[in-house]
Amino acid sequence: MTAAELTTEEIVVLRDAARRDYDDLVAKKLSLDLTRGKPSSAQLDLSEPMLDILQGDHTAADGTDLRNYGGPAGLPELRDIFGPLFQVPSAQLLAAGNSSLELMHDTIVQALLGVMPGAERRWADEERLVFLCPVPGYDRHFSICERFGIEMVPVAMTPDGPDMDEVERLVAADPAVKGIWCVPKYSNPDGTVYSDETVARLAAMPTAAPDFRIFWDNAYAVHHLTEERPEIADILTRCSESGHPDRVFVFGSTSKVTMAGGGVAFFGSSPANVAWFAAASAKRTIGPDKLNQLRHVKFLKDGAGVEAHMRAHAEIVWPKFEAVDKALTEQLEGSDLASWALPKGGYFVALQVLPGTASEVVRLAKEAGIALTPAGATHPYGKDPEDSWIRLAPTVPVLADVATAMAGVATCVRLAGFDKLLADRA
Amino acid sequence: MTAAELTTEEIVVLRDAARRDYDDLVAKKLSLDLTRGKPSSAQLDLSEPMLDILQGDHTAADGTDLRNYGGPAGLPELRDIFGPLFQVPSAQLLAAGNSSLELMHDTIVQALLGVMPGAERRWADEERLVFLCPVPGYDRHFSICERFGIEMVPVAMTPDGPDMDEVERLVAADPAVKGIWCVPKYSNPDGTVYSDETVARLAAMPTAAPDFRIFWDNAYAVHHLTEERPEIADILTRCSESGHPDRVFVFGSTSKVTMAGGGVAFFGSSPANVAWFAAASAKRTIGPDKLNQLRHVKFLKDGAGVEAHMRAHAEIVWPKFEAVDKALTEQLEGSDLASWALPKGGYFVALQVLPGTASEVVRLAKEAGIALTPAGATHPYGKDPEDSWIRLAPTVPVLADVATAMAGVATCVRLAGFDKLLADRA
Repeated sequence: MTAAELTTEEIVVLRDAARRDYDDLVAKKLSLDLTRGKPSSAQLDLSEPMLDILQGDHTAADGTDLRNYGGPAGLPELRDIFGPLFQVPSAQLLAAGNSSLELMHDTIVQALLGVMPGAERRWADEERLVFLCPVPGYDRHFSICERFGIEMVPVAMTPDGPDMDEVERLVAADPAVKGIWCVPKYSNPDGTVYSDETVARLAAMPTAAPDFRIFWDNAYAVHHLTEERPEIADILTRCSESGHPDRVFVFGSTSKVTMAGGGVAFFGSSPANVAWFAAASAKRTIGPDKLNQLRHVKFLKDGAGVEAHMRAHAEIVWPKFEAVDKALTEQLEGSDLASWALPKGGYFVALQVLPGTASEVVRLAKEAGIALTPAGATHPYGKDPEDSWIRLAPTVPVLADVATAMAGVATCVRLAGFDKLLADRA
Repeated sequence: MTAAELTTEEIVVLRDAARRDYDDLVAKKLSLDLTRGKPSSAQLDLSEPMLDILQGDHTAADGTDLRNYGGPAGLPELRDIFGPLFQVPSAQLLAAGNSSLELMHDTIVQALLGVMPGAERRWADEERLVFLCPVPGYDRHFSICERFGIEMVPVAMTPDGPDMDEVERLVAADPAVKGIWCVPKYSNPDGTVYSDETVARLAAMPTAAPDFRIFWDNAYAVHHLTEERPEIADILTRCSESGHPDRVFVFGSTSKVTMAGGGVAFFGSSPANVAWFAAASAKRTIGPDKLNQLRHVKFLKDGAGVEAHMRAHAEIVWPKFEAVDKALTEQLEGSDLASWALPKGGYFVALQVLPGTASEVVRLAKEAGIALTPAGATHPYGKDPEDSWIRLAPTVPVLADVATAMAGVATCVRLAGFDKLLADRA
């Protein structure tokens, strides 16, 4: 039954019930945290054997002593494992430090301070810089733009990826539009998998800027949670085939495969872009920690090893996603107070609540001892104009706590929602 | 006997003898490399136990799970070990990735793209940027400046550090002079240890730029090769006492303590500078590899552990330095073809040959199968106007090869030198 079909009196009854449930919730004095997309201890335990796996080995297949300086492109054996997973030829895939966020940040830095292939000048010398930001999206992408004064224009997500009509219109109209942030598989936070058509249109669309770049953060390339194995289209090849070989930067990491703080990050792109990034980085690096890369090779072994390892992650994570869905379904199904889709991979569930109530839900949850990502974090500048998106990150708490916390969140959604409906009628 | 006291005929005899020795050298078909300051395999072996030392431990003293994201300042236990060694309070010392070069590069990037404490604007918005470069110096410092269009002004090194009369004059005269590169202990490549007076003058000197910074690359802080333990003055305290608390950035690493490619780098400065750098880096980092930092803590344990470990390095490295000195002494002592000082720490020996002959010595050595760092690498833009400095890096080859290679180098110095003397008289 939708709210429009309810009388005000009926809503008051529902609101009062939600209020009683909320008072009970507060009385439980919970202390639960659904804020950040971090692996749980149980997940990290899966990779513990990697930490002591070297056992005197410190040598690459080609005989290189990996303890010493050098090898800025990273260990070839590791690039061979992850090249196919990120859909990048391993010769065009750099294995770097412990963070793809650093690589994304540094790519923008190098574009600001040096001239990219196809660019007319350094981005620092442009009058205006604009990035398109599909929303809901990832706050740390937005923070990088904000820090460097890059204007952000939100574009709505659809079930197939960003609204491509809008993206095509914006990139064609304004040469200041230099980039777009994309999390193409199990998108953060809504779990969307880009359709082949979306990828093809991103690759083919005419852009006013000759140096337009897609920042393709394939953070969840191998993070399936069910038996489904959706594959996104190969953006690098699509770009090349569409006559825009240098359009895309591909990023990924093992942060949510092995160790969140001790993984390996990857940068992949066209030969020209890789040469540009490697040359710019050459003034900076003495080579990545190749010993940690060797640990990864010895532990994961090959693509099949990664697949098996990710299944073990899924066994831990998927029940938590199901618990999120169950808790929301039990209290909210059939109402129009909230909508969500249960992603089949990745790290997040995006919950859309009544416009104008997301902040209130987060506030109510906090008062009840349930920490949620701040409302607005899914949007540029931390401002969701509709105040309706909430990012749920269920991986860290143990399963029972996820269920408890999400039942509490659903109660908060009901209370805030019915209060809003009543206020709208007042 | 100096060249001026020799007759031309006497020089011809000496040159012909050198030519015969050189022909013998070429006939040996050597393949030896004295180019870069890398630890030898034997040195890296000293730290091999560190690689498998975790044995299931992944927890900080405060209970933090070091496998996960976070902890951008680095592991406190490790900062406590290295704070005293770098003369930085551990609360003001960040432990980061595997490269201090990256930290130096990124500090300049953040100064270019953000406003530092005391700065009037971003360095990217300055019309001109100038760094003072004590020469001979480190080529990778110069490469960073060149990459970002920062003009480099050479300043001669003295046995006490940079020529401070010249430094004081330059920094007082021009607000575009924003920085100076310093390797204060066992300087690269001449091995100079800055005197207390030099440090005090650097800290106290008036500068036209309000945001002048000393880039204090204390790369060889613990790299003693003899029983002497020269200590440089505490620059951070000196700056603070002189009313310039934010003047210095301190850098260091364990790259030449543990693993060259798998060490830990440090950034230390005033509270204001550390807060600035940490805030700028917060958009970039998900925290350093804290597991590798824990490995270091468990392996090195404390300052005494570092000291004992560096003694083991010295046992390997010092005989190579002695071999350099012996080979040069045997062929060149008493001539004025070359001068050098045997450093008591660090990684390099700087050899000064007759002006106009350094490139020729490097060329002759290469023809004889002995790779040397390119002449000019010790100077900004790779250009030594006197063509007289050669950096010798004797750590990588085994001892016997160092002796062989350096005897060859001495022969090249004689041949190039006598040829030059004859050309000058022609």
